[in-house]
Amino acid sequence: MKQTDIGRMRISCPDQPGIVAKVSRFLYEEGANIIHSDQHTEIEKKRFFMRVEFQLPSLAQRLDQVRSKFEPLATEQQMDWQIALAAHRQRLAIFVSREDHCLRELLWRWQIGELDADIRMVVSNHPIWQETVEQLGIPYYHLPVNKENRDQVTEQHLQLLAENQIETVVLARYMQILPPAFVQAYQQQIINIHHSFLPAFIGANPYHQAYDRGVKLIGATAHYVTEELDQGPIIEQDVYRVNHRHDAEELKRLGRDLERIVLARAVQWHLSDQVIVEGNKTIVFPG
Amino acid sequence: MKQTDIGRMRISCPDQPGIVAKVSRFLYEEGANIIHSDQHTEIEKKRFFMRVEFQLPSLAQRLDQVRSKFEPLATEQQMDWQIALAAHRQRLAIFVSREDHCLRELLWRWQIGELDADIRMVVSNHPIWQETVEQLGIPYYHLPVNKENRDQVTEQHLQLLAENQIETVVLARYMQILPPAFVQAYQQQIINIHHSFLPAFIGANPYHQAYDRGVKLIGATAHYVTEELDQGPIIEQDVYRVNHRHDAEELKRLGRDLERIVLARAVQWHLSDQVIVEGNKTIVFPG
Amino acid sequence: MKQTDIGRMRISCPDQPGIVAKVSRFLYEEGANIIHSDQHTEIEKKRFFMRVEFQLPSLAQRLDQVRSKFEPLATEQQMDWQIALAAHRQRLAIFVSREDHCLRELLWRWQIGELDADIRMVVSNHPIWQETVEQLGIPYYHLPVNKENRDQVTEQHLQLLAENQIETVVLARYMQILPPAFVQAYQQQIINIHHSFLPAFIGANPYHQAYDRGVKLIGATAHYVTEELDQGPIIEQDVYRVNHRHDAEELKRLGRDLERIVLARAVQWHLSDQVIVEGNKTIVFPG
Amino acid sequence: MKQTDIGRMRISCPDQPGIVAKVSRFLYEEGANIIHSDQHTEIEKKRFFMRVEFQLPSLAQRLDQVRSKFEPLATEQQMDWQIALAAHRQRLAIFVSREDHCLRELLWRWQIGELDADIRMVVSNHPIWQETVEQLGIPYYHLPVNKENRDQVTEQHLQLLAENQIETVVLARYMQILPPAFVQAYQQQIINIHHSFLPAFIGANPYHQAYDRGVKLIGATAHYVTEELDQGPIIEQDVYRVNHRHDAEELKRLGRDLERIVLARAVQWHLSDQVIVEGNKTIVFPG
Repeated sequence: MKQTDIGRMRISCPDQPGIVAKVSRFLYEEGANIIHSDQHTEIEKKRFFMRVEFQLPSLAQRLDQVRSKFEPLATEQQMDWQIALAAHRQRLAIFVSREDHCLRELLWRWQIGELDADIRMVVSNHPIWQETVEQLGIPYYHLPVNKENRDQVTEQHLQLLAENQIETVVLARYMQILPPAFVQAYQQQIINIHHSFLPAFIGANPYHQAYDRGVKLIGATAHYVTEELDQGPIIEQDVYRVNHRHDAEELKRLGRDLERIVLARAVQWHLSDQVIVEGNKTIVFPG
Repeated sequence: MKQTDIGRMRISCPDQPGIVAKVSRFLYEEGANIIHSDQHTEIEKKRFFMRVEFQLPSLAQRLDQVRSKFEPLATEQQMDWQIALAAHRQRLAIFVSREDHCLRELLWRWQIGELDADIRMVVSNHPIWQETVEQLGIPYYHLPVNKENRDQVTEQHLQLLAENQIETVVLARYMQILPPAFVQAYQQQIINIHHSFLPAFIGANPYHQAYDRGVKLIGATAHYVTEELDQGPIIEQDVYRVNHRHDAEELKRLGRDLERIVLARAVQWHLSDQVIVEGNKTIVFPG
Repeated sequence: MKQTDIGRMRISCPDQPGIVAKVSRFLYEEGANIIHSDQHTEIEKKRFFMRVEFQLPSLAQRLDQVRSKFEPLATEQQMDWQIALAAHRQRLAIFVSREDHCLRELLWRWQIGELDADIRMVVSNHPIWQETVEQLGIPYYHLPVNKENRDQVTEQHLQLLAENQIETVVLARYMQILPPAFVQAYQQQIINIHHSFLPAFIGANPYHQAYDRGVKLIGATAHYVTEELDQGPIIEQDVYRVNHRHDAEELKRLGRDLERIVLARAVQWHLSDQVIVEGNKTIVFPG
Repeated sequence: MKQTDIGRMRISCPDQPGIVAKVSRFLYEEGANIIHSDQHTEIEKKRFFMRVEFQLPSLAQRLDQVRSKFEPLATEQQMDWQIALAAHRQRLAIFVSREDHCLRELLWRWQIGELDADIRMVVSNHPIWQETVEQLGIPYYHLPVNKENRDQVTEQHLQLLAENQIETVVLARYMQILPPAFVQAYQQQIINIHHSFLPAFIGANPYHQAYDRGVKLIGATAHYVTEELDQGPIIEQDVYRVNHRHDAEELKRLGRDLERIVLARAVQWHLSDQVIVEGNKTIVFPG
């Protein structure tokens, strides 16, 4: 199958009988074949969610037309909806600070073609990864942040993102808090990796917190960034077993392996349009 | 929602454009509201699979009628299909030998209402669990098996199952091999728990095999029984970490916890019509 | 090996060179053979921990004598220490409220000989498990608790425990908070199962909290009870993957399987003298 | 603590009373302080295993002397034994074929100081990773293998290893079978990553085998190489949950994450002298 013939539709709307029928008839009449169709209903909230992956010859050329024709049904059903081309490579910005394990993980997956996106830039408050990044042909922006220049740097960030039409920002262990203006401009478009099993150990030094609490499993959490620190919708989490032999430094070391994998999964699901955010939660459909 | 208004449809058929549209329109026109709809396409084999959970007022009374009306579409699309009532409690037989951990697990879940089935009998080649079973009001059949009487006992088994209209047989650590006649009579209706991570350690004494091989994880596998020993379609598997401190006896002990949970999950998914068998594999839809 | 010949020594003391040498020489000179020896040093805190499992002919008869002879070394090294007979079956009390899954798990393991203890009583604020418990020959004390009688019930509890020389109390989903007097009387002797991955979701209704937060893994935590709610030293934790399909009720149902296993492991490790508490953490040695 | 003051002793010998006492007294009298001491007894085989991590001032200078002084005790107890300096960086060779995920994982850990070894060379039957490797300052040997030149290449391999005094060979997805001469020369020194949960799916294309069998978890196994393919002592294994949505290609993709982590753990445990091989199994002591 040609990637340019494959589309992904995401729908969120009030639950009513007949939605699946209407959506699937629409696709059938457009000449589409459904590859995957996943649906979920929040019964208490009477809310309906759907993701359809479909094949439609020449979709790349016909995308705008298909969207227009879907509009009336979408309006009738009060849908939040997207139809995206599977072949579309999102424009990505990666933010990083001193620790490079998440950055390198994403770069490596990108190099072998597993991360299907267009990494337009790496932004850091440190100069240290410049060579690593630039030798892959990716621009590196070193923008140090301190109390005085915070607002100004945020402006620079937002300008860079705008100029490059960035669609998704990945905080790959970027240890600066993004100001509300930034977060609001990219809602459900900023993915952060937090180095704990949220909501345990919010804030700074989660591995030290975990060590002090004596937990028997450490965790990592990838989530969309909202204005409240470490409170956004969780996309993915995982854990690893530890014991009394592991001090805080070793938790940190073992945690790196979790962080890399958890972030990479979350980014991949996001890029494949598998995630729908509802309130402060995510629905993650199978790929 | 009333359980008697809820139906579950399972479909397996050649993949063609429009199936989801046709099925969902059918349900919509019958007055059904789709609660869950999951679909899967085996692209290489051009095979389509679907499970729909729907609400339809008075379905219990209208079930035969709905099935009849679906028949033409099913025939047109060459479907293997079932429509079951969620409220239908399957008639279950549990077979057990000397080890009772899986039996007790199922009985306990049945007592607290988690195992939504009608346990009609427990069959064993040993007398030991008679009191445990009978005090719950479940008939216990003690049918010892040896080389001489094997055929005769199989006949007794099949007669018991037939008389009680048993729909699903669970081998809860039943250590006798079922003869082909039995297996053929209940295809995709017999669930076995094997105490290893199949296909590793087929056959007898898997924990001793695992100990001898020095594996770092032990496993358990629930699968449908076919004529080839331990080769049937896998429904569920799980593992637990072990180390050099654990001898074969301890692997056995730790494995019991895996076996119980893995079997219970598989039985529950089977009873909720979440499983479709395709060739020697299963598709397990979310519940 | 005869269980009555097997001893388990636990030591916690300031770290100094020569401790292992001194302890192992002591055992050797007593005629003991070391089966397992595990040691741990908290380097920053300069604290030494050791667990030794040893075989010593007629240890059951000689236990007091061995303890006396060890006393001088223990004093010299400022040790917290115990020497216990592996054959000693601890006297256990289980507390339970409305949910019986943890109770049944412990009872079943006790019946098959896996839980090596003497269950002297089950205490509940509800009458519902009386028959289940008494038919196993275990006394059942139904002591309802309310605001008015709380102090009086605590006294009854403590009296029952004292009369029966209870060594370990297991809170198997006992949903009443134990008052400080109770907790202080049984420090490091009360094990609770909390139905979340602590420190996430402290307090009431953790599954609802987990559902509301949209976590992708649910957890359970077994810990020693201290005066601060859900803050005691963690013995064991485990998690299970969930998704958007699972509502709070299903998290509760899936969580039961975690709770049972996590509590059972913790109780078993405790009964096998594998646990040393240090500050608010545990060292859990292999068995 | 200075790394040059830290030693690691590994012992394997017939079980007898007093060994721990004798070994720990020896260390005490040498002026050593024990940091970690782990011991294991195979009761049936009457075999004793021990790993001790100790601090001894100026150990680097005194290492030969300490070894000499230990010799009589070792001989008396018929020990297989090693005393290694923690500061010793083993000389490593990495072999790789077409897939680079394991190679890159090791290189990255080496770059950030987590893999505490001296990577002396990367050997491949393909030229493709030359630049990646050489820009890190590591020599790359491209030695293509075919039916005709196999013996000759093996000779070249062995010569390269000898010249560089290689201590450990890591097969990071090297898809050629090593001949007996190679394996015999480096017993318990060659670590391979196999892309299945051994002993399931031995040999070629394990992900296709796993897909065909319909397993619900995929695995990876790191093991020492012996003359029998995929039969050597297992060091580490792990698994990841999959479902019917994942085709063989996706199993392969998901498996890469397992392989990297499992191999990295095994190599690290090996380099930290945590592993003792006994028969066809490993004892992996905590670090």
